[in-house]
Amino acid sequence: MNSSSAANALDRAAGHQQRFDASFEKYFAELAGDLNGARLGRFTPRCLELLAELSLRGGKRIRVVLMYEAARLVTEGEAPGLLEAALSLELLHSHALILDDIMDDSPMRRGGPSTYYACRADLPENPQSAMGLAMMAGDLAGFLALRVLHRADLPADRKQALLDVQLGVTTDTVIGQILDLERDVTSSADEELLETVCEYKTSRYSILAPLRLGLLAAGEELAEHEESLRRYAVPAGISGQMRDDYLDLFGDPDVTGKPIGADLRAGRLSYLVRDLLAATDGDDHSIVKAALGSPECTPRTIDRIRDIAYRCDVHRRLQSAIDRHAEAASAEASSWRRHWRGEAVSFFEQLPSWNAKRAR
Amino acid sequence: MNSSSAANALDRAAGHQQRFDASFEKYFAELAGDLNGARLGRFTPRCLELLAELSLRGGKRIRVVLMYEAARLVTEGEAPGLLEAALSLELLHSHALILDDIMDDSPMRRGGPSTYYACRADLPENPQSAMGLAMMAGDLAGFLALRVLHRADLPADRKQALLDVQLGVTTDTVIGQILDLERDVTSSADEELLETVCEYKTSRYSILAPLRLGLLAAGEELAEHEESLRRYAVPAGISGQMRDDYLDLFGDPDVTGKPIGADLRAGRLSYLVRDLLAATDGDDHSIVKAALGSPECTPRTIDRIRDIAYRCDVHRRLQSAIDRHAEAASAEASSWRRHWRGEAVSFFEQLPSWNAKRAR
Repeated sequence: MNSSSAANALDRAAGHQQRFDASFEKYFAELAGDLNGARLGRFTPRCLELLAELSLRGGKRIRVVLMYEAARLVTEGEAPGLLEAALSLELLHSHALILDDIMDDSPMRRGGPSTYYACRADLPENPQSAMGLAMMAGDLAGFLALRVLHRADLPADRKQALLDVQLGVTTDTVIGQILDLERDVTSSADEELLETVCEYKTSRYSILAPLRLGLLAAGEELAEHEESLRRYAVPAGISGQMRDDYLDLFGDPDVTGKPIGADLRAGRLSYLVRDLLAATDGDDHSIVKAALGSPECTPRTIDRIRDIAYRCDVHRRLQSAIDRHAEAASAEASSWRRHWRGEAVSFFEQLPSWNAKRAR
Repeated sequence: MNSSSAANALDRAAGHQQRFDASFEKYFAELAGDLNGARLGRFTPRCLELLAELSLRGGKRIRVVLMYEAARLVTEGEAPGLLEAALSLELLHSHALILDDIMDDSPMRRGGPSTYYACRADLPENPQSAMGLAMMAGDLAGFLALRVLHRADLPADRKQALLDVQLGVTTDTVIGQILDLERDVTSSADEELLETVCEYKTSRYSILAPLRLGLLAAGEELAEHEESLRRYAVPAGISGQMRDDYLDLFGDPDVTGKPIGADLRAGRLSYLVRDLLAATDGDDHSIVKAALGSPECTPRTIDRIRDIAYRCDVHRRLQSAIDRHAEAASAEASSWRRHWRGEAVSFFEQLPSWNAKRAR
């Protein structure tokens, strides 16, 4: 792939993101009128406002971009249902983020307060009700994700197929979340469990589902491609998850929007934490162990752990694993050139290494 | 309605419940095999087990019975989609119960531990993870409710209509829950807010939706009946809600499955609490006020409040309001005799007064 096709792909991605953001804003502007009773009282409008705030503050829209590019694998023309599928993806993502932040007791998300903490600020004397309100905002987002797709003006079989993907995503994501809880509670961090968590929480949700939705909307039959899509999604997902885990210690909090060492403090057995535990012994190992799952661990301790990590070459080892998985995904995407449009194939070839580079 | 038709209706209701319970058990037996990854690890199977336990421990199945009888308003024959709609209703109900019990920090449900407290018993040293696990069990139930209907083998337009009802129920219920939180936090218990909460939390969810699903499955067009269904569902819902509120103080905990005074302790501004506050002054009023929202309030204080309520005739006034709303609903059902089957019309005429009697 030459640099001009890479630049084109990035331009297209930026275009998808901007067009989607405008549509997402419009969606929220119309939502209250569309929901019976959404204007009743003060709390319901506030809940919708918080959901809109979090959703529109929204990140790179990577799932949306992936989905639009997946449709372009097949056609440059209009693919009906694509917008509704994009809204569905992002609403489901808001759903997951809101519930995650309640479960993890996280104050920050996307560089602003988490929905949970915004509710707590609204109701300082009623922490239980604040949690309830945040739970309802998350719950609502999940159901709206399915409603927006269900209401799309599409042929019945197309809609059935798209809803099938999204309903599969919902149960996969819940299972991923449960596996994640299990990993952290039981402190079992063998490679297999880490990869299973990653497949359910990341690969299926963030990569495979957008690919399938985009292809379906473009009229493609999925059956013969399922295996190849999975061979792309799994390493791309692992690479992306490793990069997120990497950034928890080595990233810039102004860019990630989260304080450094959040995974460590939360006791999350991420790829990075696994590598840290494996690479250290003696005092170094004890420092890491003590910080793990200790919310009161200071920024100074986190700095010290980062120094230990550099000293033990943890950053370099994790980076090369990130690259290795990214390359496996790219190689799979190259095989798509036989039957799909080259321009979009280039995007999928390039994507894993863009992600991998963000860790440097 | 004579006593033999009432007995027939009750027999039919018992039959609906038994057949449904057998199908619901079968649904859960097949669920793990049906969900990718549900057999991974220990926590996911446990989560499904807890969801099945709560769901199968399950109460009167009043929504299911209502829905089957609604179909019988139109036909005695098979109505395709009815079983899937019933599974969807009860899964959505499990969803609501699980989240309710987290928000209210309730240890008991349906005469057993709430899902939240069962998770806490499983993970005594990880209360945050226990809450996360319970949240995921509830989340899963909500998505499964939609999935089971989406997967039904039905004509596309029929399925679209049924899903439309259930997706409307999901957003209505979330709004009802938010209004409920608002009522309790802001201590505003004017008649209008109480009735709005009741409409969203009870009438639409427990009565209107089953009626609409049953009629749709039986092939009826809803448009011309919507107003009449609402005129039935709203007073029947208020009557039912008032009865639940009544039973919180005057009921038998062995029958309700909940400790006496749970609403009072939780600070819930129920119809009963509103009446208690309005009917008392001086010391009596202070005792009620002090107990409201005080989890440590003793059974002795609750007994004393019950005595106050009897002395002030709160029980009789609430009972007559329950009867009045029940009669309004019955009168509306009578008008259905013109176009629907008499046997099922009798059921709907009788239902509100059965409920009203349970409060005596």
